[in-house]
Amino acid sequence: MRPVITLTTDFGLNDAYVAAMKGVILSINPEAVLVDICHTVQPQNIMQAAFVLSNAYYYFPQRAIHVVVVDPDVGTERRAIILRTPSADFVAPDNGVLSYVLEEGGVQADGALPAGWQAVALSQPRFWRSPVSSTFHGRDIFAPVAAWLSLGLTPQDFGEIISTVTMLPLPQPRRERDGSLVGHVIHIDSFGNLVTDIRQADLPQKIASILVREHSISGLSRTYAEGDKLVALVGSSDRLEIASKGGNAAIFLKAKIGDEVRVKEFGGYEH
Amino acid sequence: MRPVITLTTDFGLNDAYVAAMKGVILSINPEAVLVDICHTVQPQNIMQAAFVLSNAYYYFPQRAIHVVVVDPDVGTERRAIILRTPSADFVAPDNGVLSYVLEEGGVQADGALPAGWQAVALSQPRFWRSPVSSTFHGRDIFAPVAAWLSLGLTPQDFGEIISTVTMLPLPQPRRERDGSLVGHVIHIDSFGNLVTDIRQADLPQKIASILVREHSISGLSRTYAEGDKLVALVGSSDRLEIASKGGNAAIFLKAKIGDEVRVKEFGGYEH
Amino acid sequence: MRPVITLTTDFGLNDAYVAAMKGVILSINPEAVLVDICHTVQPQNIMQAAFVLSNAYYYFPQRAIHVVVVDPDVGTERRAIILRTPSADFVAPDNGVLSYVLEEGGVQADGALPAGWQAVALSQPRFWRSPVSSTFHGRDIFAPVAAWLSLGLTPQDFGEIISTVTMLPLPQPRRERDGSLVGHVIHIDSFGNLVTDIRQADLPQKIASILVREHSISGLSRTYAEGDKLVALVGSSDRLEIASKGGNAAIFLKAKIGDEVRVKEFGGYEH
Repeated sequence: MRPVITLTTDFGLNDAYVAAMKGVILSINPEAVLVDICHTVQPQNIMQAAFVLSNAYYYFPQRAIHVVVVDPDVGTERRAIILRTPSADFVAPDNGVLSYVLEEGGVQADGALPAGWQAVALSQPRFWRSPVSSTFHGRDIFAPVAAWLSLGLTPQDFGEIISTVTMLPLPQPRRERDGSLVGHVIHIDSFGNLVTDIRQADLPQKIASILVREHSISGLSRTYAEGDKLVALVGSSDRLEIASKGGNAAIFLKAKIGDEVRVKEFGGYEH
Repeated sequence: MRPVITLTTDFGLNDAYVAAMKGVILSINPEAVLVDICHTVQPQNIMQAAFVLSNAYYYFPQRAIHVVVVDPDVGTERRAIILRTPSADFVAPDNGVLSYVLEEGGVQADGALPAGWQAVALSQPRFWRSPVSSTFHGRDIFAPVAAWLSLGLTPQDFGEIISTVTMLPLPQPRRERDGSLVGHVIHIDSFGNLVTDIRQADLPQKIASILVREHSISGLSRTYAEGDKLVALVGSSDRLEIASKGGNAAIFLKAKIGDEVRVKEFGGYEH
Repeated sequence: MRPVITLTTDFGLNDAYVAAMKGVILSINPEAVLVDICHTVQPQNIMQAAFVLSNAYYYFPQRAIHVVVVDPDVGTERRAIILRTPSADFVAPDNGVLSYVLEEGGVQADGALPAGWQAVALSQPRFWRSPVSSTFHGRDIFAPVAAWLSLGLTPQDFGEIISTVTMLPLPQPRRERDGSLVGHVIHIDSFGNLVTDIRQADLPQKIASILVREHSISGLSRTYAEGDKLVALVGSSDRLEIASKGGNAAIFLKAKIGDEVRVKEFGGYEH
């Protein structure tokens, strides 16, 4: 089976950076199937890249290789790593860009890897382009490492095993004394839907109302087409979302990343 | 031959939605060749998706599978279909997004399919991801159905045959009593060219002038580089276009979708 | 090995133009591996396309075919060509869009090709779609020619050999009497980094300061993360770049293409 390599970067669509990486990969493994996840991550926005990646990698074939290059400290002492999980491989700077992937694997704040997971710090220049540009490791390190990895090398061929990787603190909903669950907007998609850090499993059985930017929404809808102007629903990433029927909730609410979303339960103390 | 699957959506380029669909497809059929037609259709703009699709599908190999996901009513009772034509397959919500494809096949307003065309309403969950998100059928229904279809299943494997599909009313030019042909801007491309609903075959032999937003253009040009500031020509989709030499006609004319374009014939009554 | 065909155009991402080209190519050679270099070149900006192409083609496998369609004079008498270099093939209008590729091969202003390079002017309509639209040679000429070329035909099959091609004058740094080297901003990337026409080899051993838009930068950094607000460094294309640590230099400096960048050498006359 032809190996799949995905690419997630903040390189934008107006430059040749992504294409240069693809050229490097195809020069090493002409059989690689290249798939773009996203290249319009905001420049150097590690958390955004981490989130976007987490919504895509799960759907790819087993053993796909996911390359992530959002790398503000390129060329400095920050580590570059391969992370091997039971289902996939990741090639990325060790700057937290894999935090959502790690969270789903149960990794805690200390970044210690669970059984069955493995990470190496890239240290074998024989798999890199030479000379290595100090500003474009995507092309000179991450792309060739992913390509060689797709040819069947093992992570240990590329460097020494490490036991912890960088785990950034991820936003988490909190439970308040009145029983409310208070989460946060962690992503705004192209439709203007607000995706929150509240997962379906966090939600109370009986929801009285959902408050966001001083608007109140009564209960959950099942689809974007239901309900009133504003709807709350569990979206495709299994998270609570706020959407606007036929419109753009982010613009309507002037919402931004970090805004609080409060879920009030029937039977909780009203305030 | 490796099967070709194209994707047309309004998912934009900033999210993981398109990549999730590709991952699902490659997980089912690793040999599929994935080609993006367009992902920047305006959110929920069914007519725009229908038009963009109609300008691309014709050029793909026979039996390519074209997936279209512009789906404001996702999760509701709207049908999802496979349309099989003599040359290609389409997998889409039955909301009119195939209207231009249908028009080219001679389908009338009642949506009745001609001989040699076939449609099924998707009803076999065994080809869907499980559970199906009520907000992302692109990932959970359309992508896996297209992938299984590319493996050689027949449309009937996915649901029951239906005899009519949704055909939206498409803009049409009208002939006026003075002999003028009055069409409409139906698309504005990235260059600012105005594409109309007037086909080459509709045009009179001898054109006196072409009027658009109170500007008059005398006769047709053959290329964008000819003529004056504004040129009228038959573009690559065989439709009358208004362009600006070295500029952007849409900005210059402040034009928008739906604007009238009037073609006056020599010998027609002047007014 | 499956042949690689890359695409660079000014067609944008909102239309079906790029997809139509891909459909045409796959209809002729289903084994072609299609890679996008860039489709958001500013409309008709030949120099921008030439620069972007020059930063990508080098990294692709030997004998990749690079199709470039930025073609303001489509349909007129301008020539369409195949350029064969020792490492790759290019299919493009002969309007200067290959100027940086030619410069790297040592081609001078007269456009005379060096030994081992070959160009033909496309003149064999049997390899074109029929009829040829006068407005979309990308679909009707360049795409099918590239596809047939990828099947193993030779350039001479497509037209007669020509000895010179169009070489546009490229910006060059100049040495001033006080020893300063004065270059120009030739590209602004998605991060806002200013890429100049000063190559690493042009730089003096000891740099006193670098002046750009009335800001002075002292010496070169090695990475984007080093230095102060503004940094100067040799970027991944081996050119002097001006960047802003964690920010956007182009916005900070209100810089634009053509702006001068002055490198002052230690020991040069100060002024």
